Amino acid sequence: MTHKGFFITFEGPDGSGKTTQIHRLAEELERCSLPYLLTREPGGTEIGDKIRTIILNPDHPELAEKTEILLYAASRSQHVIEKIVPAVNSGKIVLCDRFVDASIAYQGYGLGQSIDLVKMINEFATGGISPDRTYLIDVSPETGRNRMKKRSGAPETGVTKSADDLDRIEMRALTYHKRVREGFLSIYEENKSRIRLIDGEKNHDQVFQEIIADFSQFISRGV
Amino acid sequence: MTHKGFFITFEGPDGSGKTTQIHRLAEELERCSLPYLLTREPGGTEIGDKIRTIILNPDHPELAEKTEILLYAASRSQHVIEKIVPAVNSGKIVLCDRFVDASIAYQGYGLGQSIDLVKMINEFATGGISPDRTYLIDVSPETGRNRMKKRSGAPETGVTKSADDLDRIEMRALTYHKRVREGFLSIYEENKSRIRLIDGEKNHDQVFQEIIADFSQFISRGV
Repeated sequence: MTHKGFFITFEGPDGSGKTTQIHRLAEELERCSLPYLLTREPGGTEIGDKIRTIILNPDHPELAEKTEILLYAASRSQHVIEKIVPAVNSGKIVLCDRFVDASIAYQGYGLGQSIDLVKMINEFATGGISPDRTYLIDVSPETGRNRMKKRSGAPETGVTKSADDLDRIEMRALTYHKRVREGFLSIYEENKSRIRLIDGEKNHDQVFQEIIADFSQFISRGV
Repeated sequence: MTHKGFFITFEGPDGSGKTTQIHRLAEELERCSLPYLLTREPGGTEIGDKIRTIILNPDHPELAEKTEILLYAASRSQHVIEKIVPAVNSGKIVLCDRFVDASIAYQGYGLGQSIDLVKMINEFATGGISPDRTYLIDVSPETGRNRMKKRSGAPETGVTKSADDLDRIEMRALTYHKRVREGFLSIYEENKSRIRLIDGEKNHDQVFQEIIADFSQFISRGV
């Protein structure tokens, strides 16, 4: 490919099914022999994975909110510079599980930190790059929590999970997760041309059909 | 003690002798049975020490400048909230090896990143707290480099050092360390009432006499 690639992000509350969906889209790209990079935050690089381990470790309840915000931004900065920008510039379709919207929703709306400050720190971290398209999969906090509880304890975060099999962020109260969801919906309202809102209460196949239909149209427009 | 404690920082280029001096001051406080906390950055907390290991690891040359700035700020935020503020509020004399001035000198002046952005991110990280007194020990980059090379390989950073026994930051070119020194001197010019500038080319005993004389006067003023 000679033209620039695309930067696509998947966002949504815990238990929305976004990780399942991003993997299905990656399989589809693989099937069509389209060059892509599947990645996630926090993490995505060797340094980022070390930062991820600090952030998600349930044995560190003393981690301060401001420290959390700065660690997410540090992981993101490394990810953008080392992986995302080079991949997009080489013509790849970058599929990223969470990005800046997640920080605004979780740390700004969820924790009640200043949304302007979270945006400003992330603007510094990313150098201002923004996704070309974002799939925001919306579910109620109750559905999300129930799905998280049903999951087997696959060690996907790379850290030891607590007895309840939830990481430090997932363990927070339902009221926090309600604020996060409202945050995501506010971000959608402000970015309707970039974000496609998808009802994650539907079954996985229905959700994927909606994503692949939009994605095909988006890519063929070449925007 | 019923009144609030003091927050004292030591700053200066690598090889300035500040770590030796801060330990001598701590011994003096110990001898006088004054309550104190001796700490350092990056690090100072369990989470901060994990961040420190990422920052100083010479096996990660790909660490981006912005990531470095955000990791220092993350370590600092945790340090301020978990250790420094509680210690000062309980009446202790907090002696801290490096603080915000070091970020402005190394990351702003040294790396050539925006000084205003470095200040702004650190303002967020610290909640705006500033040291009561700062000892800035000035040496030329040549003296600093020679002293660093003479040191035995004590594993003070907690990470594996390279063959030359210098960490990732210490390995940078002499021109970088010249900009750092100029940065420290500019910070001094802007903060003369807080910072005491000390000639680190003198021997350790002379330097310590100057620090202890100033410190005694400063504490007795109860400022």
